[in-house]
Amino acid sequence: MRIMIIGGDGYLGWPTALHLSQRGHDVAIVDNMVRRSYDHELGAHSLTAISTIQERIAAWQAVSGRHIELFIGDLCDYTFFEPAFKSFAPDAVVHFGEQRSAPYSMIDRRHAIYTQTNNVVGNLNVLYAIAEHAPDCHLVKLGTMGEYGTPNIDIEEGYITITHNGRTDTLPYPKQPGSFYHLSKVHDSHNIMFACRIWGIRATDLNQGVVYGIETPETMADPRLITRFDYDAVFGTALNRFMVQAVCDMPLTVYGKGGQTRGFLDIRDTLACVELALLSPAERGEFRVFNQFTEQFNVLQLAEMVRDTARNMGINTFIHHLDNPRVEKEEHYYNAKHSKLIDLGLQPHKLSDTLIHSVMRVVYDLRHQVRPSLILPSVQWRTTHSQVQATPAASSNGRHQ
Amino acid sequence: MRIMIIGGDGYLGWPTALHLSQRGHDVAIVDNMVRRSYDHELGAHSLTAISTIQERIAAWQAVSGRHIELFIGDLCDYTFFEPAFKSFAPDAVVHFGEQRSAPYSMIDRRHAIYTQTNNVVGNLNVLYAIAEHAPDCHLVKLGTMGEYGTPNIDIEEGYITITHNGRTDTLPYPKQPGSFYHLSKVHDSHNIMFACRIWGIRATDLNQGVVYGIETPETMADPRLITRFDYDAVFGTALNRFMVQAVCDMPLTVYGKGGQTRGFLDIRDTLACVELALLSPAERGEFRVFNQFTEQFNVLQLAEMVRDTARNMGINTFIHHLDNPRVEKEEHYYNAKHSKLIDLGLQPHKLSDTLIHSVMRVVYDLRHQVRPSLILPSVQWRTTHSQVQATPAASSNGRHQ
Repeated sequence: MRIMIIGGDGYLGWPTALHLSQRGHDVAIVDNMVRRSYDHELGAHSLTAISTIQERIAAWQAVSGRHIELFIGDLCDYTFFEPAFKSFAPDAVVHFGEQRSAPYSMIDRRHAIYTQTNNVVGNLNVLYAIAEHAPDCHLVKLGTMGEYGTPNIDIEEGYITITHNGRTDTLPYPKQPGSFYHLSKVHDSHNIMFACRIWGIRATDLNQGVVYGIETPETMADPRLITRFDYDAVFGTALNRFMVQAVCDMPLTVYGKGGQTRGFLDIRDTLACVELALLSPAERGEFRVFNQFTEQFNVLQLAEMVRDTARNMGINTFIHHLDNPRVEKEEHYYNAKHSKLIDLGLQPHKLSDTLIHSVMRVVYDLRHQVRPSLILPSVQWRTTHSQVQATPAASSNGRHQ
Repeated sequence: MRIMIIGGDGYLGWPTALHLSQRGHDVAIVDNMVRRSYDHELGAHSLTAISTIQERIAAWQAVSGRHIELFIGDLCDYTFFEPAFKSFAPDAVVHFGEQRSAPYSMIDRRHAIYTQTNNVVGNLNVLYAIAEHAPDCHLVKLGTMGEYGTPNIDIEEGYITITHNGRTDTLPYPKQPGSFYHLSKVHDSHNIMFACRIWGIRATDLNQGVVYGIETPETMADPRLITRFDYDAVFGTALNRFMVQAVCDMPLTVYGKGGQTRGFLDIRDTLACVELALLSPAERGEFRVFNQFTEQFNVLQLAEMVRDTARNMGINTFIHHLDNPRVEKEEHYYNAKHSKLIDLGLQPHKLSDTLIHSVMRVVYDLRHQVRPSLILPSVQWRTTHSQVQATPAASSNGRHQ
C-alpha cells in the first residue's frame, strides 16, 4: 500500500513511518519540521537525542534497505501539498500533522489562533486533495479522546444512539473538549464527517488516548532512529514528567487532586492500531470513529506507579499536589468504550511496572540532560496570556521552585 | 447600554444597529465592508439600492438625532479590533460579523478555508477581547439552526439530556451541519462554550432560522436607511429567489423534492430577539443557546405560498423542481424547539400572505434591476470547484436556462 504520513517527523509519526515501511508498504513523509521549531521557541528539547529527518531516513535505508520518500513543507500551503500528494498518489493518508499540545494552544491568543487555523486548514487541505485527486484514498486521522471531555455517561465510539420524546436516532457523540487544541480536533472531526457525506471520502478518526513509551522494534534497530521523549510542561505528558522528576530527585507534581481520568496506550499499540485501520479501511462515504486506548488511569495513579517503581530502583520520591493550571474536573465519572480496535485484532500492551521501569532506565541514563525549569506548569487556562519562555535564571532555580 | 455590533453593515446588522439606537442604546458598528466585496466578486448586488455605511449613519443622525459610532476594519486583525473594543468599552457585543452563505463556502477550497478561518478567528478575537478587557461584557453571537442539521429526533435548544446505560447527563446537542459555512458556526459554538467555562464569559448563542422581510420601522424612516435584499443563488434565500422569479415571469426553482424543512422568522423578530437577549443577559460563565425562529416551513410550501400570492397579484407562475445542488435530505422529520425567546417575551410576526405580498410589491417595483443569471444555482456540493462568476453571456441567457 502507498501510505503518506503527514507529520512523519514527530513523536508518533516517525515510528509509524518505520513500522509501515518495515511491513513492506511504500511510505512517504510530509512534514514542515515545526515540532522542532516549537522547541526552539520554548527553550525545550527532546530528552532523547533525535537525528535530523534526513539522517533518520538515511539510517533507515542503511538498516533496512527500505526507502522512505520525503516532502518537506507546510500542509497549510496547498501549492506545496497538492503536487506532493499528486506525485506520491497515496492509497492512504495517515494524518498526524497537527499542533498537538493543549498548553501550547492556551499560551495566548496568538497560539490559540495558530493552533486552530493550522490544524483546521491543514486538515481541510487533506480533504480537498483526496476529493480532487484520489477519491478512493483512505484518510486515517489522529483525533483525541479529549474531544469527548468528561461526560457523566459512558463515552461511546464516535456516535451515540439517543431515544428522545419517543423517537430514536444515532448521532455524533456530544463533544466537550478542554483546550483550544482539543477544540481544533473537534472542528476537524465535524469537517471530516461532512466531507465523507458530500464527497464519499472514506475516513477513520482515531480518538487516541495519551501515549507512553519510547521504543519500538524499528526505532531500536539503530540509535539514529530513536523518537522524541518530551518532558516539558507544554509538550510532555504527565507520565513522562513524573518519570523525569523521579530520576532528578524532584517531587512528582500532580495538578490538583489528580482524579482526572484518561485513556492510555503503549506506543507500540498506536502503531498497531494505525496499521489495523489501514488494513480494514472505512467504506466509501463512511466516517468511522475508533477510541484508541487500552487502559484508563487517573493522574494520581500514574504518579503512584512511578513513585513505587522509583522506590524499587532505590529512588525515594514523593507526590506533591499543585494548584491546577487547567480548568477541568478533578473527580468525575469516566467510562469510555474501546472495543472496535480490539475487534479488528489489537492485542494490547498493558502499562506495567516493567514498562515504566524500562522507560525510567532510559530516562535515568539521560538525567544530566534534564532542564528542570521546563517541568513545572507555565500555562494557565484561566488567564489569556501566559509567559512560557524559559530564562537562564528560571532554569537554574527551577529545581527548587 | 453600550452595544458594539460587529457586521453592522449587513442585511441584519444594519437594522439591528438602528433598532437599538432608536431604543436609546449607545451603538457602535464594526465592519470591514466585505459583504459588499462578495457582490463585486460574484457580479451580484442587493436588489434594494443600499447607501454607503457613511451615508447610512449620516442619514440616521439626520432622521433621529442619534449618533452611531463606526469602526471600519477587519475583525480578524487584532491590531485593529483590540483598540476599537477598548475605546468603545461595550457592555454587550452583538456578533453578526461572519461570512454567512453556505453556497459561498462551498465554491471551492479557497472559499471554504476563507469562511472557516474568517469566522473562527474573528470569533476567537471577540472572545479574547472580552476576556482581556471587559470580562463582564455579554456576547450575543449569531449562530444558525443549520448547526443541528436534520436529526430524526426533536431538536432542543443547545443541550439535550441523555440517559444512557443507566446514567444521565445534559450535554451539548449533537451537530450535523450541512456546509463548510454551517460547520464554521459549529466550531464557533464549541469555542464560545469553552471560553465561558474557563474565563467566565457570559454568552448567548442565537441559533437563528432563515430570516425574511426587508422593512423595519427604523429603515422605513428614510430611503437611505433601507437594508439589503439578496436574491442571487449564493447569498439569497429560497423565499427571496422565489419572489424575484415570480415577478420576472420565471418558474420558481425548488431544489429537489422541496421537503427540506427549516425554521423561519421575520426580520422584525430578529431585532426583537437580539434585544430580548441583551436585556436579560446570560450569567457569568453561562453559555446560553436560544433557537431563534418562529415557524417551520419546507421549501415547497414557500414556493406554493409565493405562487399563490403572485396569482392574487395577477402573475401566473409555476414551480419547477431542479436537481438539488446540495447534499441534504429532501424528506425528513423536523421538530425544533423554540420556546426560550417566547418565554422572554417575544411576540412573533408570522409569515402571512400580507407579508409576502408587501415584499413582493417592493420586488415588483424593482424588477427591471433583476439580473436573471444570478438566480439559478451555481455552486454544487458534490464537486470541489464550482464556477460562480456571472458572465455577460450567461446574464443575457439566464432567463431561459
